[in-house]
Amino acid sequence: MLPQFLLIFGICVEAISGAIAAGRKNMDFFGVILIACVAALGGGTLRDVLFDTYPVSWVNHPEYLVYTSICAFSTIFIARYFSRIMTLFLIFDAIGLASFVIGGVQKSLADGLTPSIAVLSGMISGICGGMLRDILCNDIPLVLRKELYAIIALGGALLFITLSHFHVTDILNVAITLLAIFTARILAISFHIEIPKFNHPTHK
Amino acid sequence: MLPQFLLIFGICVEAISGAIAAGRKNMDFFGVILIACVAALGGGTLRDVLFDTYPVSWVNHPEYLVYTSICAFSTIFIARYFSRIMTLFLIFDAIGLASFVIGGVQKSLADGLTPSIAVLSGMISGICGGMLRDILCNDIPLVLRKELYAIIALGGALLFITLSHFHVTDILNVAITLLAIFTARILAISFHIEIPKFNHPTHK
Amino acid sequence: MLPQFLLIFGICVEAISGAIAAGRKNMDFFGVILIACVAALGGGTLRDVLFDTYPVSWVNHPEYLVYTSICAFSTIFIARYFSRIMTLFLIFDAIGLASFVIGGVQKSLADGLTPSIAVLSGMISGICGGMLRDILCNDIPLVLRKELYAIIALGGALLFITLSHFHVTDILNVAITLLAIFTARILAISFHIEIPKFNHPTHK
Repeated sequence: MLPQFLLIFGICVEAISGAIAAGRKNMDFFGVILIACVAALGGGTLRDVLFDTYPVSWVNHPEYLVYTSICAFSTIFIARYFSRIMTLFLIFDAIGLASFVIGGVQKSLADGLTPSIAVLSGMISGICGGMLRDILCNDIPLVLRKELYAIIALGGALLFITLSHFHVTDILNVAITLLAIFTARILAISFHIEIPKFNHPTHK
Repeated sequence: MLPQFLLIFGICVEAISGAIAAGRKNMDFFGVILIACVAALGGGTLRDVLFDTYPVSWVNHPEYLVYTSICAFSTIFIARYFSRIMTLFLIFDAIGLASFVIGGVQKSLADGLTPSIAVLSGMISGICGGMLRDILCNDIPLVLRKELYAIIALGGALLFITLSHFHVTDILNVAITLLAIFTARILAISFHIEIPKFNHPTHK
Repeated sequence: MLPQFLLIFGICVEAISGAIAAGRKNMDFFGVILIACVAALGGGTLRDVLFDTYPVSWVNHPEYLVYTSICAFSTIFIARYFSRIMTLFLIFDAIGLASFVIGGVQKSLADGLTPSIAVLSGMISGICGGMLRDILCNDIPLVLRKELYAIIALGGALLFITLSHFHVTDILNVAITLLAIFTARILAISFHIEIPKFNHPTHK
C-alpha cells in the first residue's frame, strides 16, 4: 500500500495551494481554512460520493482536517515568501498529485471496483480537489486550461493498473508510478508542455 | 422502457453542447472532454447521488464515457460549421432533453421511489448536466435564465407519471411524452417563449 | 428534539434569501424557485450526501419543496419592500441559522455519527445552503468573506455537543444554543465584527 506519510504529505501540499488561492480572493481566515480543506480532501470525497465507497476519508480520519487547518493557517504567515520557493512548491505538488492518484486507484481496487473505474477514481482523486477549490474561488478550474496535469493523473492511474495487472509487487508499483508521475509533471512544467486548446468563438 | 438508443443519442448531443461550451472558454482538449462528460452524464449522476440509487450510470456503462469523449473530440473539428446547423442541433437537443427526462423518471420508479420524487428525478436528469457544465465554465446556468427548458422538463416528467398512473402502456407513454417535450421545446425556441424574470436591484 | 416549526421557519427564511439572490442575477421565476430550494435545502442535502445518511430530507418531506416554492414566489412580489425590513430579515436569518445548526447536529447524532463529525455536520447544515446558492449565482460564497457566520455556526455546534455531553436536557440545550447563536450573530452584524482577512497578491 501507499505509505501513509505520502498521502498526508499530499494533503498538506494541497491545503497550502488552497490557502493561497483563498488569499488571492481576499477571504477571511475561516474561508482560507475551508478552501484548504476542500482543495486537500475534496477530490477523495467526491470519489467516495460518486462510487458509493463511504465513509469519506475525513470521517474516519478527522485528524486530516486538523492537518489541513494547521497548514492553511501557517500559509497565511509564510505566503509572502512563497514566490521565492515556488519551484520547491511545484516539486512538492508533483509528489502530492502522485500520492493522490495512487491512493485513489488503490482504494477503489480495495473497494472492489473494476480496473477501468479504478483508473477514473485515481484521476478524480488527483484533480478534483483543485477543481472544487477553483469553483469555490469563482475561477474556471485551472486543470482544464493549464500545462499537463489531468492527463498525467490519468496516465499515472493507467500505469499503476497495468503494472498491477502484471503482478508487479505493490511497493515497486508505487515507486515506479510515483516516479513516472513526478517526472512527467516536472517535465511538463519545465518545458511548458500543453495540450492543444479548442477555441470556439462566441456568437452572441 | 425507453429505447436505449434514444438515451445514447441524448448523451451524444449533450456531450457536443458541453464541448462547445468548453471551446468558448478556450479550454484544452482534456478540458473539452471532461466538460462534455459532465454535461452528458452529470445530470444522471447527480440524480443517483441525491437519491442514493447507486451505482451511477457510467460505472455500469463505462462505454458512455467513450461515446462522450468521441463526440467531444469530433466537435473540436466540426465546430466551425455549427452555426450553419444550429437549427438541427436545437432539434437534436430537444430529443436529448426528452430522453433524459423520461429515462430519469423510469429509473426512479424502477428504483422504488415515489411518483412525486420520480418527477423531480426526471427534471434533475434533464437539466442538471447543463447546470454543472455552466458552473464548471464559470457561467450562471443558462437554464435559469433562458427560454422554457426546466419547466418543460418538469412538465414532461409530470405528463409521463400521469399517463403511467392511468396505465398507458410504456411504449405509448414514451412516445407521447417524447413528442410533447419535443414540441414544447421547439415552440419555445421558435417563438422565444420565456418565463417572466425577477429583477431585484442590488443595493450595495 | 428541535421543534419542527423552527426548522420550517429556517427553511422559509433561507428560501427568501435564495430568491433575492436570484433576483439580483435577473433569473426567471423558475430559476428563483430553484435557487430558493438550493439555499433552503442544499446544506442539509450536502450533509446527508457526505455522511451517507440517506434519504435526504426533501425525499421524506416533499412538502419542504412546496414551502420553499411558495416563499420564493411570494418574495418576487414583496422584494421591493425588503430594504425597509432588512433588519427584521437579518433577525429571522439568525434564527434560521441556529435552527439549521442544531437540526444538523441532532440528526447526525441520531444517525450514530461521532460527536466530532456531528459538529462538522451542524456547520455544514448551517452554511452550505448559502454557499451552493452563491456558486449557482456565480459569486464567491459570501460566507467566506462576510461578518462572522461560519464561525458562529461552528461555535454553536460545539456548544450544543458540549452541553449534550454534560447531559443537559435536549429542550434546555436547544434553547441555550439557539439563544447563543442568535445573540452572537446579531452582535456580529451590529458591530461589523469580522475575522481578519488573508490578502495574498496575485503574481501573474
